[in-house]
Amino acid sequence: MANPIQHQTIKVGLVGLGFMGSSIIASLLALRIPVRAIAPFKEEQEAGLLRIKEQLILCEKFNLLKAPVESYLELLTVSSDYAALSDCDLVVECVIEDIDIKETVFKKISSNTKIETILASNTSAIPISQLQKLVPHPERFIGIHWAEPACGTRFLEIICGEDTNERTVNTVKGWALNWGKEPTVLRKDIRGFITNRLMYAVYREILHLVENGTTNIEDADKCFRYDAGSWMTLMGIFRRMDFEGLKDHLTTLKRIFPQLSNSDEVPEQMLQLVNENAKGIQNGKGFFTYTEKESKLWAEAFSEFNGDIFHLAAKYPERLFIENDTENIK
Amino acid sequence: MANPIQHQTIKVGLVGLGFMGSSIIASLLALRIPVRAIAPFKEEQEAGLLRIKEQLILCEKFNLLKAPVESYLELLTVSSDYAALSDCDLVVECVIEDIDIKETVFKKISSNTKIETILASNTSAIPISQLQKLVPHPERFIGIHWAEPACGTRFLEIICGEDTNERTVNTVKGWALNWGKEPTVLRKDIRGFITNRLMYAVYREILHLVENGTTNIEDADKCFRYDAGSWMTLMGIFRRMDFEGLKDHLTTLKRIFPQLSNSDEVPEQMLQLVNENAKGIQNGKGFFTYTEKESKLWAEAFSEFNGDIFHLAAKYPERLFIENDTENIK
Repeated sequence: MANPIQHQTIKVGLVGLGFMGSSIIASLLALRIPVRAIAPFKEEQEAGLLRIKEQLILCEKFNLLKAPVESYLELLTVSSDYAALSDCDLVVECVIEDIDIKETVFKKISSNTKIETILASNTSAIPISQLQKLVPHPERFIGIHWAEPACGTRFLEIICGEDTNERTVNTVKGWALNWGKEPTVLRKDIRGFITNRLMYAVYREILHLVENGTTNIEDADKCFRYDAGSWMTLMGIFRRMDFEGLKDHLTTLKRIFPQLSNSDEVPEQMLQLVNENAKGIQNGKGFFTYTEKESKLWAEAFSEFNGDIFHLAAKYPERLFIENDTENIK
Repeated sequence: MANPIQHQTIKVGLVGLGFMGSSIIASLLALRIPVRAIAPFKEEQEAGLLRIKEQLILCEKFNLLKAPVESYLELLTVSSDYAALSDCDLVVECVIEDIDIKETVFKKISSNTKIETILASNTSAIPISQLQKLVPHPERFIGIHWAEPACGTRFLEIICGEDTNERTVNTVKGWALNWGKEPTVLRKDIRGFITNRLMYAVYREILHLVENGTTNIEDADKCFRYDAGSWMTLMGIFRRMDFEGLKDHLTTLKRIFPQLSNSDEVPEQMLQLVNENAKGIQNGKGFFTYTEKESKLWAEAFSEFNGDIFHLAAKYPERLFIENDTENIK
C-alpha cells in the first residue's frame, strides 16, 4: 500500500456540506489535499465549516494530523459558485438522496468543470448507472462510498455504473490507495453495495431467530461482539475460511444453506418499533432503550473505539503476510 | 458482570484432550478451577498435557495469569479412569463428532457421577436433544460451545435441548459469567447455533456476489475487515441499528431482503477448491495461496490479534453504558 502522505496533489471538489460531505472533506484535508466545497446557502456553509472543524479535531484525536487544525483549513474554500470547481480533478456529489436535486447539481457541476474531470457520487440510494446518464462523457462517472467517520476507517467502496470505463476505475482506485484506503471495487451497481448487503443477510437471519424465540437481541449482539468481532478486523471472510479449513466449512455450508431464512418480510417487532417512532440512540428508543446520558456515552465510545480499531488494524497490514512480495492472490 | 476471579470453586470434568478440549481446560485452569481430565490412552494424555501447557503460556501472553504456568497445572489431574469424575459439578464431553463414541462416553460419565452433576457437550454437529437422551435425568444436560482460543474470547454459546430445564440453564449461565464469559443462550437446538448461522448467511451472499462477478474475494474481505470490523467488537448487530437509526434501516431491509441470495447451493469455485484438496492455511491452498512462512505468519498474527482485541473489548464493557445500573434491555 502506498504511503498515504505521498499522494499526487489532486484537487477535489465536493458538493454538499451535510454530515457525510463534511466528514469526507475533513478526511481529504487531513491528507493535505486541497478541497473546493460548494453549498448554496450561507447557513449551510457555516454549519458545514463547523462540522469540518469538529471532524479535523477528531482526526487530531486519532493522531492523523502533523500540524494544527487551522493549517488544514487553509486548504479549503467554501463557495456557492460552482465556478470554483473549474480546476478540480475529481468532484464528488454528496447532496440529499433526491434524483431531481442530483440532476440539477450534476448539470451545474458538468458545465463548470473540464471534460476530463472525474465525477462521482457518494449516493447509497440511487443507481450509478442512472446518475451517470445526467452528464456528458458518462464513462468518467463513478460511485465512491465512504464510511463514517471518513478519516477513521480504511473502508471505501468504488462502484462502477454500466458506462464507467476502466481508466476511471483505476484512477480512483489509485487515489484511494494514496488516501490510505483499502478500496473494494464493485463491478456491478447492485443495491446496498457489498458491505450493507452482507450485513442485511445477517439481519435477515438474526431477526428470524429472535422472532422464533431461538435467542434474544441482547444475547444475539454478544455473538458478533465477542465471536465474529474477535477475528474480523484481522482477516475478512474468505481468509477466515482459509484459516479454519475449507472442507469442514463446505460440509456445513451445504447443510445449513437450505435452513437459512429466505424471508422477504421484515419481522413485526421491527415494524412496530419504527411505527412507535423509535429512532435508536437518537431518541433513546430502539431495540434497546437509552437515557440521554446513555446515548451520549455510546456516541462517545464509538468515536473512541473507532480510533482504537483504526490503529489496531494498522498493526496488521496485508503486506506483513506476503513473503517476497510475490503476487499472493489466487 | 461478576469478577472472573470471584467464582465459586466448582470442579469440572472434561473428557477428550484434543485441540478444543485442551483449550477449554487451560481456560478453566487459568481461572483457578480444578479440572479432572479423562483420555483413554497414554499418548493422548501426553499430547493433551503439552497442548494445555501451550495454551497456558498463551494465557500468560494475554496477561491472564497471576502466577507461573506450573502453579495452574497443579489444579489438573489427567486419567483414563472415569471414577476421577465422581466429585465434579460439571462434566464436559469434548470427543470426536461420532454419535456412537459419544454414547459410550456418556454412559461412562453418567455411571461415574452424581445425578446432580450437570452434563454438557461441546459438540457443534450433533443435536443436544439427541445426546441428552443418552443419560439419566436428561434435564441436567446442556450444550456449551466455546470458541478458540477458549481463554482469549468472551464468547460462549449455551444450547438447550428439548429436555433441558431452566435450573440447568441458569446454573451454567452463572458459571459462564463467573468465568468472565458473555454467554449467548440458545433456547432452540438449531444447526450451526447462532454465530455460525449468521456467518453462513454472510457466506451465502458473498459467494453469490463473487460468483456473479460483482466483486472479487480480495476486495470482499476488505469490507468486513475495515467496515463491519470497525464497529462490531463495540456494538453487536442490534445496537448497530439503534446507532444508525431504525427507520432508514427498515426502508433498506424491505428493499434488499427480496434481492438477497436464497441459494441452497454452494458455488462451483468452492466445490472445486475442496476437490483439489485445498485446506486453506494448513496446506497453503485456499481462496488465497500461502507459502509455508505465510501460513505461519497468519497463525501467529491471529494469536496476537486475539490478545489485542480481547483487551480492547475489555475497555468497553456493557456496564459502562448503563446509567444508574437500571435494567436497560427492552
